Amino acid sequence: ALIENVFDHQHLRYNPLRDTWVLVSAHRMKRPWAGQVEKPPEEHTPRYDPRNPLCPGNTRANGEVNSDYDSTFLFENDFPALQPDAPDPGSDQHPLFQSKVARGVCKVMCFHPWSDVTLSLMKKQEVVKVIDKWAELIEELGTTYLWVQIFENKGAMMGCSNPHPHCQVWASNFLPNEPALSDRCQRAYYQKHGEPLLLQYAKQEAEKKERVVVETSDWLAVVPYWATWPYQTLLLPRRHVLRINDLTTEEREGLADIMKQLLTKYDNLFEISFPYSMGWHGAPTGPHLNKDNSHWQLHAHYYPPLLRSATVKKFMVGYEMLAQDQRDLTPEQAAEKLRNLPEEHYKTREN
Amino acid sequence: ALIENVFDHQHLRYNPLRDTWVLVSAHRMKRPWAGQVEKPPEEHTPRYDPRNPLCPGNTRANGEVNSDYDSTFLFENDFPALQPDAPDPGSDQHPLFQSKVARGVCKVMCFHPWSDVTLSLMKKQEVVKVIDKWAELIEELGTTYLWVQIFENKGAMMGCSNPHPHCQVWASNFLPNEPALSDRCQRAYYQKHGEPLLLQYAKQEAEKKERVVVETSDWLAVVPYWATWPYQTLLLPRRHVLRINDLTTEEREGLADIMKQLLTKYDNLFEISFPYSMGWHGAPTGPHLNKDNSHWQLHAHYYPPLLRSATVKKFMVGYEMLAQDQRDLTPEQAAEKLRNLPEEHYKTREN
Ligand SMILES: O=P(O)(O)O[C@H]1O[C@H](CO)[C@@H](O)[C@H](O)[C@H]1O
Ligand SMILES: O=P(O)(O)O[C@H]1O[C@H](CO)[C@@H](O)[C@H](O)[C@H]1O
Repeated sequence: ALIENVFDHQHLRYNPLRDTWVLVSAHRMKRPWAGQVEKPPEEHTPRYDPRNPLCPGNTRANGEVNSDYDSTFLFENDFPALQPDAPDPGSDQHPLFQSKVARGVCKVMCFHPWSDVTLSLMKKQEVVKVIDKWAELIEELGTTYLWVQIFENKGAMMGCSNPHPHCQVWASNFLPNEPALSDRCQRAYYQKHGEPLLLQYAKQEAEKKERVVVETSDWLAVVPYWATWPYQTLLLPRRHVLRINDLTTEEREGLADIMKQLLTKYDNLFEISFPYSMGWHGAPTGPHLNKDNSHWQLHAHYYPPLLRSATVKKFMVGYEMLAQDQRDLTPEQAAEKLRNLPEEHYKTREN
Repeated sequence: ALIENVFDHQHLRYNPLRDTWVLVSAHRMKRPWAGQVEKPPEEHTPRYDPRNPLCPGNTRANGEVNSDYDSTFLFENDFPALQPDAPDPGSDQHPLFQSKVARGVCKVMCFHPWSDVTLSLMKKQEVVKVIDKWAELIEELGTTYLWVQIFENKGAMMGCSNPHPHCQVWASNFLPNEPALSDRCQRAYYQKHGEPLLLQYAKQEAEKKERVVVETSDWLAVVPYWATWPYQTLLLPRRHVLRINDLTTEEREGLADIMKQLLTKYDNLFEISFPYSMGWHGAPTGPHLNKDNSHWQLHAHYYPPLLRSATVKKFMVGYEMLAQDQRDLTPEQAAEKLRNLPEEHYKTREN
């Protein structure tokens, strides 16, 4: 009770995965909002649109024709940020003007032939196929590349230019900033405490319960103690798992279940197809495959932008860009709200 | 010529102020955009709006009445993220559930009595008054607080809920993440190279010229070599200056000049009132006032979101959130574009 009182007031919380702090100002939700409102997501996407370059059988910008796929569908990004053959800018530079070679590949993966479904609305076995494909990609691209980033931008609000359910995979010859930081933090924790950071964290959260959104025998989804986005969640296995391709068949089934449950809660929160960016972090690959990565634990981050309603998002600007992340409700409040939402999707519910 | 060729291709650049890398994929500007478009900024803000809580003589949400001000105007934020009296959550916690006390104040400062002007359109002497007030705030709040963050969110796209020209000042008893990182990086550089990082950087850029947007005898505005936002700039004095209150009268006049020049270029880029978040970073204050801060150099960061036009912004999502910042045009291309824009504001230009 004492601790709850204290957390009604502003305070700082530590993010052990990034070695940073977040400012929690719970009392700030009371302020009125007269700022920008977003367009609510389009709720009537046609199942098939002859002009949509992601639909089966359609022609893309570069003239290639999509197969008539009936499950997942993978192709090279037509405008890749990473290509396999960029020249090396060379070394021996001034310390303030340092550059490095960047090589990689960018792929797009459709989840389903229909444009009018999302992971929350797909059948469990269809979601398992997506997970199997993710595992395959980590396995295949991981032989060459040091880091394989699987991520999904969902919704126009998250810069996603196509409503068809899909994710992206960017593989690179370098360890990007975020996983590099996470690697450092997890390694330091492991060296000090003798147990992987996220394994210990999952155990604690499963006991405390107050930040748990959904859980299954193998998986846990929580609003992390250090969440910055209002309804941010962290999805992680209870067992020590390094990479998504290490998951057993049973664990993949369990993952499909918990993903559907979590994403249904998200959609039910404001009764819209909930926008977010999400992505997987697991132990690095390529040259790291032969190294000890016991400090790593596989996990997914979900970063949804909405704060108050389907049209009012949290702006990470000004103070956040220049100084530090700040949030307007506590992670415990967010978790409770999500936890108490119905398990059935608002679109399939009978009224 | 060789180096230019190399930089036509993707590569990584190092940000020495944050110890991170940015992925530069110049070739990506060619991709078509079918995603979300923003509303262009409102171009017809009335000079005075009886319902706007920032206008002179109006009543704010908490019942307080603004003075009939005719220059700058300062008041306490009615919904502060930081308050001076929050309780201490206590120490002795599990390493994964760490919290700390956060105390501070949040103020709002109007730049001008009129709602229909911006810093770019204000008279030079009016801008000098804003700078003097900033200096006063650093001086006053800096006696108590460790960090005083002055920042401006401009435009609805940047979460700014009021069109009246204003900035915010959040002072805290802790050093936030971003300045803490910058402090660490500047200190390490100083120890290794014996000269402040940003002083050496300004000299180099003034010679190289290719990233300079505007310069005066005392000031320099560049698109930094490591810029992440498309038209990001760094504004800094040529002389070694720790904090904004250390600026001479002449340097404040010079700052007003270069700010007006830079912001006019920004407005001219897409012929709209250009949205951005900006803020000042100088040496820490409070208990740091008696310490050696020679590694610090005063500077302002401008982070504007637009990429292609008045309505298409760069989304920092997915890969950026989960892995690493990525940009679609080179800093040199952005600097050249800004540099070549007219010096006269599009709103005051004769046709
Ligand atoms: O200016 P406001 O309305 O207080 O709030 C705005 O700036 C704050 C500080 O950058 C952010 O935390 C908010 O998300 C943003 O909407
Ligand atoms: O999905 P797209 O259209 O390639 O692009 C989107 O995701 C990318 C990776 O997160 C971002 O860099 C872009 O800013 C965003 O618009």
